[in-house]
Amino acid sequence: MYRPEIKVLDCTIRDGGLMNDWRFSKAMVKDVFAGLAQAGIDYVELGYRADKQQFSKDDFGPWRFCDEEDLRETVCQSDARLAVMADVGRTDYNDIVPASESLIRLYRVATYVKDIQEAICLGDHCKKQGYEVSINIMAVSHALEPDLDRALDKLAGTDFDMVYLVDSFGYLQPHQIEYMAHKYLAKLPGKQIGIHCHNNQQLAFANTVEAAMKGITCLDGSIYGIGRAAGNCPLELIIGFLKNPKFDVRPVLDLIERYLIPLKKDLKWGYEIPYVITGLLNKHPRAAMAFMNTALNTSLRSFYDELSNLDDI
Amino acid sequence: MYRPEIKVLDCTIRDGGLMNDWRFSKAMVKDVFAGLAQAGIDYVELGYRADKQQFSKDDFGPWRFCDEEDLRETVCQSDARLAVMADVGRTDYNDIVPASESLIRLYRVATYVKDIQEAICLGDHCKKQGYEVSINIMAVSHALEPDLDRALDKLAGTDFDMVYLVDSFGYLQPHQIEYMAHKYLAKLPGKQIGIHCHNNQQLAFANTVEAAMKGITCLDGSIYGIGRAAGNCPLELIIGFLKNPKFDVRPVLDLIERYLIPLKKDLKWGYEIPYVITGLLNKHPRAAMAFMNTALNTSLRSFYDELSNLDDI
Repeated sequence: MYRPEIKVLDCTIRDGGLMNDWRFSKAMVKDVFAGLAQAGIDYVELGYRADKQQFSKDDFGPWRFCDEEDLRETVCQSDARLAVMADVGRTDYNDIVPASESLIRLYRVATYVKDIQEAICLGDHCKKQGYEVSINIMAVSHALEPDLDRALDKLAGTDFDMVYLVDSFGYLQPHQIEYMAHKYLAKLPGKQIGIHCHNNQQLAFANTVEAAMKGITCLDGSIYGIGRAAGNCPLELIIGFLKNPKFDVRPVLDLIERYLIPLKKDLKWGYEIPYVITGLLNKHPRAAMAFMNTALNTSLRSFYDELSNLDDI
Repeated sequence: MYRPEIKVLDCTIRDGGLMNDWRFSKAMVKDVFAGLAQAGIDYVELGYRADKQQFSKDDFGPWRFCDEEDLRETVCQSDARLAVMADVGRTDYNDIVPASESLIRLYRVATYVKDIQEAICLGDHCKKQGYEVSINIMAVSHALEPDLDRALDKLAGTDFDMVYLVDSFGYLQPHQIEYMAHKYLAKLPGKQIGIHCHNNQQLAFANTVEAAMKGITCLDGSIYGIGRAAGNCPLELIIGFLKNPKFDVRPVLDLIERYLIPLKKDLKWGYEIPYVITGLLNKHPRAAMAFMNTALNTSLRSFYDELSNLDDI
């Protein structure tokens, strides 16, 4: 498919950082940014800008905070636009300086449906400071439909640039993505709609393709699929699909070989049965991550039975 | 999706055997068959019945041949029907004994479009001996459409039970599966249509779901996705999708834990960039398998460039 209006955002460092508390070396992040810029990627998300009152620099690597000084040491001159994420309730407005004083071009405000009003306040602040703004509504597979509809109606009245459909739990199937894509596009004329998928059921790429075929124009991927738990849609597959000569997969292959294959030995994102189980059951992956990170003598069968039977109710 | 007419076939031992020359232990295969029977799987394919004039028992494990004696030691009494594959040009008709003398219930005749007439002869022989018969047209992404159409028209005049759409190279996208599913269903009324996908681009499950949504009723999967190169559609994902209470994923989880996770350390099927590259380029995975099995000092970038530029033409 060749549709030149489609933009690609790489979230390797931001979402991958959820697996190692953002402790990527500056040398690696510098190479990742430069490689992605060479590959023609439109936006590169290097982390969060998190509130230092809530999160200590002793506990997390630099990409939890994305200080301007760290960004200056890392980002090369290129057409790739630098993005960071700001979580509702975990962001100090004072950290969002005027865009003229920052290398950041795009703020992605992450929110649940219930916090949409606060997300709009934070987005308004970012917009006033001169940034592009995206609102990323997480965990959409847990949202009640009337609540989601109201949130989208509110966003229709804003001047934000993008609104993202986020399948945080890797639960949605392509026909559900189609349904959601129609909804977002119908309710938000004039805005770019984005998609961010998790790969619990090996559907992240198929869902991203489905979204693109149905009119969504901002596609999130990460190199070699790195990301929390099962990970994200592999960026290399998106590039292969788009058939846009502005993209070149080869710098991404270099980064996979140099950094991602070695990292995967330790971090273990990807296709793992505990992540399949939480995805299938439409649950947060935290129980699966705990299962993966401990040497519990629990069988996969017991894990499945536990998650299937003991619900939060 | 709940559609009780959908049948599931597991090809763990047959397709997985392409990665280890069918050297699975009898104890493992016995447990696999029993576990799949408990899981409610309709057909279990345990290997090939290959011509011993062409293939030596010194070079391959028992599941290359599926001798009745080996099957008798392995298969338990259950509702699961035993299947084997017979390759056109690699099968001795004399090895296909009357069904009353065999544990086999289903023969799957594997063919390329060009060999369809020979496949029909072999299928006729199997049918006369009393078996269910499926014709599996491999490498459909390399077939010219008029040739494929003629092959399907010929099959419409046979009494075979199933015809399979096989994406051998993991090239097809869901919208192409939809197109193919419509073609097979339209040309072969009264026959069951099946789908067998490879996972080079992480689309095997999505393509299988798409096929099922469009009316295909026989779905191939393998435990933990084992199979040649990138592997097949993971059986556990198919079970999760079908929502049919006759299936129970838990015996499959036991088999994954006991056998497949240990096997994966050696056999390395699954998401690997060389397989992505051959899938994306619609090529046989043999070059990727050679790349994976040697310690060549070749980079992924060089492998990509070589496959992209040096074509067979």
